[in-house]
Amino acid sequence: MTAKIITIGDEILIGQIVDTNSAHIAQELNKIGISVHQITSIEDEHSHILTTLEEAAKRADVVIITGGLGPTKDDITKHALCEYFDDVLVRNDEVLQHVEDLFKKIKGTQISDLNREQAMVPSKAIILHNKYGTAPGLWMEKDKTVFIAMPGVPYEMKTLMELEVIPKLVKEFKRPFIYHKTIRTYGLGESAISLRIEAWENDLPKAIKLAYLPDFGTVRLRLSGKGKDKELLKISIDSEFEKIYPLLADLLSDKSDVEDITGTISNLLKMKKQFLCLAESCTGGEIAARLTKIPGVSSCFKGGVVTYATHSKEDILKVPAGIIEKYSVVSAQVAEKMAENAKRIFKSDFALSTTGNAGPSKGDSDAEVGTVFIGLATPDRIFSKKFEFEGSRGQIVEKSVNEAFKIILKELI
Amino acid sequence: MTAKIITIGDEILIGQIVDTNSAHIAQELNKIGISVHQITSIEDEHSHILTTLEEAAKRADVVIITGGLGPTKDDITKHALCEYFDDVLVRNDEVLQHVEDLFKKIKGTQISDLNREQAMVPSKAIILHNKYGTAPGLWMEKDKTVFIAMPGVPYEMKTLMELEVIPKLVKEFKRPFIYHKTIRTYGLGESAISLRIEAWENDLPKAIKLAYLPDFGTVRLRLSGKGKDKELLKISIDSEFEKIYPLLADLLSDKSDVEDITGTISNLLKMKKQFLCLAESCTGGEIAARLTKIPGVSSCFKGGVVTYATHSKEDILKVPAGIIEKYSVVSAQVAEKMAENAKRIFKSDFALSTTGNAGPSKGDSDAEVGTVFIGLATPDRIFSKKFEFEGSRGQIVEKSVNEAFKIILKELI
Repeated sequence: MTAKIITIGDEILIGQIVDTNSAHIAQELNKIGISVHQITSIEDEHSHILTTLEEAAKRADVVIITGGLGPTKDDITKHALCEYFDDVLVRNDEVLQHVEDLFKKIKGTQISDLNREQAMVPSKAIILHNKYGTAPGLWMEKDKTVFIAMPGVPYEMKTLMELEVIPKLVKEFKRPFIYHKTIRTYGLGESAISLRIEAWENDLPKAIKLAYLPDFGTVRLRLSGKGKDKELLKISIDSEFEKIYPLLADLLSDKSDVEDITGTISNLLKMKKQFLCLAESCTGGEIAARLTKIPGVSSCFKGGVVTYATHSKEDILKVPAGIIEKYSVVSAQVAEKMAENAKRIFKSDFALSTTGNAGPSKGDSDAEVGTVFIGLATPDRIFSKKFEFEGSRGQIVEKSVNEAFKIILKELI
Repeated sequence: MTAKIITIGDEILIGQIVDTNSAHIAQELNKIGISVHQITSIEDEHSHILTTLEEAAKRADVVIITGGLGPTKDDITKHALCEYFDDVLVRNDEVLQHVEDLFKKIKGTQISDLNREQAMVPSKAIILHNKYGTAPGLWMEKDKTVFIAMPGVPYEMKTLMELEVIPKLVKEFKRPFIYHKTIRTYGLGESAISLRIEAWENDLPKAIKLAYLPDFGTVRLRLSGKGKDKELLKISIDSEFEKIYPLLADLLSDKSDVEDITGTISNLLKMKKQFLCLAESCTGGEIAARLTKIPGVSSCFKGGVVTYATHSKEDILKVPAGIIEKYSVVSAQVAEKMAENAKRIFKSDFALSTTGNAGPSKGDSDAEVGTVFIGLATPDRIFSKKFEFEGSRGQIVEKSVNEAFKIILKELI
């Protein structure tokens, strides 16, 4: 079974928003054994929507469409679906009731005719209840292809996927099982890794696909397979990884399927019953935000400070003004003092610190744009590393966050 | 001039990564007057790449391709291009020299034959220098369509766009001017807004397109146009907005083209020469991370604390243990005390605080998943608001961050 995803909205085509809906939909479909063959983003333009629907039907069993179901004039997906299915809009009383209830309960504002029009749906559509919004999901079938349209607002779409779309797909279709497993390596580039595991890669069963996913200082290896027998597929992919663990031993932090480095770090901390805290300057809270994405991280993460202004480093972290004056605020000495004092203040076992200049211009210090010091206080010692990153403000922060995670990870292993 | 973007990589189709490259490319193309007609993501699969190239050529003047140019076996874009262009790979000595230099200078590891193969390029391609990576960009032409292939690693792609692709497109093509302007409204849904401005919307010149971009508690309105005369286009779009400002006066924070609420907040703070600081618990540093994305935000943002563990709220923010015991850690009283004390400690004019349970299970307090208190200390008063959000952990944090920004914004206006 293959699916195609179509996201509709000018805001994607002009780069005003990043299309995160497709990744979510693809993940959820994969979990139930449906592969996504293609993702297409197009404008809110009638004829283009029609052509895309026609093309999609040729290749896919399921076509998932998001966007363009709102109440305003720029929302035309419903009309395009009507033309494609040679259908008309009819009023659905259940949807109308839901729209009226939503306005009563949540929105507190006056309901209008435009809102009521959300209850006009293609007569051939099966309605998928949209708990959090006025535009219902639509399930329509033509020549053995199922078309599912959902609003583009991410939380409405996600809820519809969870409560309506996935359960109905599971009920109506026989699907194979898809299994992906990813491991994360540190310290070697993809070409060097591929030479190490060349013989193994050449011997991989044809049904199993290997992918290299390089990122800053880390390469992830992913094996993917599809099959009828869930257990057999898992065993065969797991056993392929078992063969290369010895070849990559020096590059692996663990063998678990942690896709994100923060997962590895929090697992290691929890195993050791140790706590981490943060003193961030140039990374501005990004390290904390990344860590707190992990549910239950409070059992290994105490918190942190974002000391963006220089005097906050003195007031909150008690970094002596003398050190800042002597070495500058972007220095190894300040990074180390920040880590040392954060560790004490937060009563933690480890403290990571960052101080640097993320640009675009020179800030409080004389440090060049891209100069970043990352400090770490451990139960035994305090040290720091200097980096000179290139790139935009966002890139420098991103690189700093990645290096910070690598430093604490290395210490934990 | 229209462009089509093709991103190649299984990791996109299985939802392992979000395709952020396309949004960046679309933005950059828009800036030089090239509209993106379609974005397509496909797997690393030879025949699918070929079909997609053929389809793209039909509709676009420029086809931008990212991904699949790496040195490992799963990277097949170069071979697909060779087949499409009926071409062969030849060694390019300049690229070879660059690859060797990169390994000497940056990577510090041994260069391998796989790395050297990056210098094998289609003979018909014009080479675009990839400063930060081993895979060069490729510029190829067929039947008046230009095909530009770049590696998918975001920072390599972005640098190639900036230094090679955009300058060459600007040089080789006459392009119209594209202008987008967006304003952000607060407090009314898109249907209610559309009723208010219905007469104006109906009278909009055909060349100007209006889009509604709803998000949590905010709707952005975007006008887009395309034309030969840059100044005329700007004037006509600006004057259209001037007509609706009076209709939306109660919903606008400012008339500037700030696309993100954080930009509005920092502009207002800088105008007033006031400072903000943060005391985050359930938002885990996300508010700080969002604010520090703004260059120069240090002139209105002092920093913040992330007091994730309950005792950190006592130790660092000096929230009295008695208050936490009496009212629970997720309470109006704690949120307000956090804001009050953060404001004092950071010597700021405003302090925002969050305390709540983002789930997925009950934490240190008895608070239900989704219960969040947001506190604000201003120069005059301290208050808090209670929210009961639904959704996943990530969604609850996202909603909390948005509400926090709305609370401070409302105070600043």
